[in-house]
Amino acid sequence: MTGELMDDLFTALRAGDRGALARAITLVESTLDADAVPARELLRRSIGHGGSSVRIGITGIPGAGKSTLIDALGLAFIRKGHRVAVLAIDPSGQRGGSILGDKTRMERLSQATEAFIRPSPTSGNLGGVGRRTREAVVLCEAAGYDRVLIETVGTGQNEFTVDRMTDLNVLLMIGGAGDDLQGIKRGIMEAADLIALNKTDGANLERNERAANDLRQALPMLPPREHGQRPEVVLCSAQAGTGIEEIQDRLERMAKGLRTSGYLGRRRSEQDRWWMRATIEERLVSRFYSDPRVLQGLKGLEEAVVNGTISPFDAADELLRRSDRS
Amino acid sequence: MTGELMDDLFTALRAGDRGALARAITLVESTLDADAVPARELLRRSIGHGGSSVRIGITGIPGAGKSTLIDALGLAFIRKGHRVAVLAIDPSGQRGGSILGDKTRMERLSQATEAFIRPSPTSGNLGGVGRRTREAVVLCEAAGYDRVLIETVGTGQNEFTVDRMTDLNVLLMIGGAGDDLQGIKRGIMEAADLIALNKTDGANLERNERAANDLRQALPMLPPREHGQRPEVVLCSAQAGTGIEEIQDRLERMAKGLRTSGYLGRRRSEQDRWWMRATIEERLVSRFYSDPRVLQGLKGLEEAVVNGTISPFDAADELLRRSDRS
Repeated sequence: MTGELMDDLFTALRAGDRGALARAITLVESTLDADAVPARELLRRSIGHGGSSVRIGITGIPGAGKSTLIDALGLAFIRKGHRVAVLAIDPSGQRGGSILGDKTRMERLSQATEAFIRPSPTSGNLGGVGRRTREAVVLCEAAGYDRVLIETVGTGQNEFTVDRMTDLNVLLMIGGAGDDLQGIKRGIMEAADLIALNKTDGANLERNERAANDLRQALPMLPPREHGQRPEVVLCSAQAGTGIEEIQDRLERMAKGLRTSGYLGRRRSEQDRWWMRATIEERLVSRFYSDPRVLQGLKGLEEAVVNGTISPFDAADELLRRSDRS
Repeated sequence: MTGELMDDLFTALRAGDRGALARAITLVESTLDADAVPARELLRRSIGHGGSSVRIGITGIPGAGKSTLIDALGLAFIRKGHRVAVLAIDPSGQRGGSILGDKTRMERLSQATEAFIRPSPTSGNLGGVGRRTREAVVLCEAAGYDRVLIETVGTGQNEFTVDRMTDLNVLLMIGGAGDDLQGIKRGIMEAADLIALNKTDGANLERNERAANDLRQALPMLPPREHGQRPEVVLCSAQAGTGIEEIQDRLERMAKGLRTSGYLGRRRSEQDRWWMRATIEERLVSRFYSDPRVLQGLKGLEEAVVNGTISPFDAADELLRRSDRS
């Protein structure tokens, strides 16, 4: 990409052009060597425009109604004068079943000129799960999207990654037959600032009210969020449109409070420091395990460790020595 | 250390000599260059003797009565014909207040010939928190100690490290004024196989019974342990000696069940594989951050990241490039 093309792309991006934003994200997601330098240059120009943005994670098991909620919540933000970007993290491609794609899943939002919806990045990106999405947030903010919703399927690990790039997280649940709170994997509830019990309508009404009560009793037993508060519980029906304004309003108030107190700024700085260090660690480790001298001995040493014939520390030392030999 | 001295030390260790075990652990904990090779050799000879051992983590906040419990529980194991070793993990030196030392804290156990009590290793060991304790477990088992108790102060991070070297974990708690379950840090309850409510006597009786009920109601909402079970709750008084036999008996039965099912073997293999990989990662990262070329740029780049003038990924790339230049 020439300097002139880059200038044009950046100008269109800053003007809020959705096509330019889509191209910019594609450039940053690219694994082509030729794209690496312009991608870095584009990101360098784009950072620093998130001063008034709110980054919100939306998580929940498949079937919880995430797309329908995002469709409704995005419109609620737009009605308040915001521009909304929707991104996704899907490291293991769990969402492969969605043949019609993200835009069809968010039918009303995809037609709004104030919204930008980005399909899930392909899984197995170089550079680590989440990195591309984290970079896309920067581009969305540079393009003037000041409410960024990041969707992920709740697996425990995904929440952790999302929590490293968002200001606030919404956990979407449905009251079930007594098993609502069971089987919630490690970390999922702990990363939530707001728990929305979705599909609160018709036959589900009573179940969700019971689940909300259970949750409100259980939450004091969980550790609070870093900012000292425990998640609020809200009943909603994304389909019927009930509870959506309340969720939007609560998120705005929370974000405002955390920004005023200075917590949000500190959180974002900490997140950035974490991404820097995590990127370095990931590269060091992936380089190590792709070193032919390491690979040559790895399988045998790992077997010896598992069989108990060599200590794990000895095996580590041996592999490190191999990678040192020039 | 000459080969002959090493032979003598190993022979005495295998014969169960407590002095030899203490010297062996000191050798392995040593940070002297001259000790590295004999320490590695000693560990190499010592692994593989834990086939019938049970490794048990004992965790709880200061004041929960860990030492008194270990004193009583250790004796209960000895009465069943076992030999008991007590180790500790204390990465940040939180136990500095214990001037009288570990042996005084476990008065009865320290007088039993079937027990070996090792004071906490000094903090800041090279090679990572927990590694020395993990290696000491191997030496204790080679010396015929078949019940190894590993004590740690509950901080969340410590439990995680202990959980990587134990078969089972006991969380020690005391029922408090309604705040028993609040403020429990992330991970602490999730790593427990058995929760013992200690100091269940006198005025505490009713409080602990209430706390036990609360816990039994809350536990189904937490994720189960990897082996599929949720922690049992037991009332005890280590001081009065009540409930100790029950804890000992439950731990034995749990360990037997997990060993028979094959879970214990798989767990230990996984732990060893984890220690190998964790050791490698730790070394790679610590080498990187002690590289003068990295150190030269680190502070400035980290500040730029926190100030938002460079992306965390760019900063990572820049530091990695510096360390590559030869």
